[in-house]
Amino acid sequence: MSRGGPTLYITGLGLSPRNITTEALEVMRLVDVVFLETYTSKGPVEFMNYLRSIRNDLILVSREDLENRNGDVIMRELERGHDAALLVFGDPMIATTHAAIAVIAKRHGFNVKIVNSVSIVCALLSQLGLSPYKLGSIATVTYPRMGVLSTRAYDVLGDNLKRGLHTILLLDIRDDEGFMSANEAVDILRRLEEERKLGIVNERLLVIYVARLGWVDHRIVVSTVNNVPDIGDTPHTIVIPGLLNPVEVDYLVHVLNASKDFVDNHQRFIHSLTVENK
Amino acid sequence: MSRGGPTLYITGLGLSPRNITTEALEVMRLVDVVFLETYTSKGPVEFMNYLRSIRNDLILVSREDLENRNGDVIMRELERGHDAALLVFGDPMIATTHAAIAVIAKRHGFNVKIVNSVSIVCALLSQLGLSPYKLGSIATVTYPRMGVLSTRAYDVLGDNLKRGLHTILLLDIRDDEGFMSANEAVDILRRLEEERKLGIVNERLLVIYVARLGWVDHRIVVSTVNNVPDIGDTPHTIVIPGLLNPVEVDYLVHVLNASKDFVDNHQRFIHSLTVENK
Repeated sequence: MSRGGPTLYITGLGLSPRNITTEALEVMRLVDVVFLETYTSKGPVEFMNYLRSIRNDLILVSREDLENRNGDVIMRELERGHDAALLVFGDPMIATTHAAIAVIAKRHGFNVKIVNSVSIVCALLSQLGLSPYKLGSIATVTYPRMGVLSTRAYDVLGDNLKRGLHTILLLDIRDDEGFMSANEAVDILRRLEEERKLGIVNERLLVIYVARLGWVDHRIVVSTVNNVPDIGDTPHTIVIPGLLNPVEVDYLVHVLNASKDFVDNHQRFIHSLTVENK
Repeated sequence: MSRGGPTLYITGLGLSPRNITTEALEVMRLVDVVFLETYTSKGPVEFMNYLRSIRNDLILVSREDLENRNGDVIMRELERGHDAALLVFGDPMIATTHAAIAVIAKRHGFNVKIVNSVSIVCALLSQLGLSPYKLGSIATVTYPRMGVLSTRAYDVLGDNLKRGLHTILLLDIRDDEGFMSANEAVDILRRLEEERKLGIVNERLLVIYVARLGWVDHRIVVSTVNNVPDIGDTPHTIVIPGLLNPVEVDYLVHVLNASKDFVDNHQRFIHSLTVENK
């Protein structure tokens, strides 16, 4: 496939087999060796089965392989003159690991190509009818590490709300590879509210709960932090809108079935936060 | 394809035929009528030819059709009991128009499905090795309208830089459907600098110029505002990084061939802006 030496294709898979692009399919079919990275994100069993139906010689790579051993397992194949693909769920963008592997391959003198796919970040905005121009900083709600709970997600949410911006909260993955649920994430946000007391995580806050985005059975439910809906299997994501324009309000009410009163109340709440800020 | 009444599939096409997902292909092949929206974004001739090779009965829809006539041309097909697809370049997220059409279809009692694809926003971060956690607000550099030049893109850039965040500047589309070039965008940013004098658009600012992202012949060149490189055909995009972490620096230098001195100088410049801000 490549000209002028071996190429590493860092290849996004999207959120489900339906998101796989014609380019990703071509790469998967034509390269000599295919690796799959399964620790910065994960695919449900159906996704794994789909990938194996295309390449049954798929090699799984761990955090250990990529970070502690500098991707040696991949570099060895390139050194043998083989083209290789490193498959990644979503778009290869969220994790620093992928950029680091691209740098290592380049320093070894190999070609690197990034194959884009559907990212959770853009897919969320699209499915929720939210304007990308009002997206605030993105954060991940994380489990306590060594007994310490990071306040970053809560602080980012507070900062975005005071600016009237939308917040995407991605949820952590446990070391045993389970995904954090929306319920766990809300518990953590409530604990942080008790600690930091910005007055943002309370019953007035409108929360959009999302499960299995990109799959046919995805669920999107608008609710509060006091009433976390049952949205079924993980992966889950949480989105908290800032100030909404009229089309965003209509989309929430008519397409996502949110109650108009509830949306109006949220608007007043966010407005009070942005006014305080001025 | 649909159950329980006609369905409108608002379907992203990605940035080039290589980005087309298996789901988008299925929708294009199976629905009764396929519309293509060509005014919020556009596809080069090769893209149009590719789409026509799949559906030679493709119907082009204008701003007039969707905004002034409330998508009547589409609603009529749904009323006849037909499933319809509205194809959109990129991911159907940037334009308010798409959310508005979804709301209209829902209010008429039809099903709406959003089919995600590769978005310019996420694809840029991915190709440039920039962390999505440090993405600031997104803006579009626009032509003067009725003789007035909007300062929004410049103000957003200033705000992001003072916060150390990355800025994606999308470029306008003219009414005659030509794309704004990087050269034109830089001219506009310089004019705004003269007017607003935040001291941000000057020779110390590192700018990443991108052309034809998503195509095999895409170009990515790191330079300054004083030296806009020839990056070939439009569409163009401009990305201005904020404070960079070590992997982002390595990616710029080793993968995108930026000069290390130049990157270090930019870091010092942004640092000085963020310090002033504190």
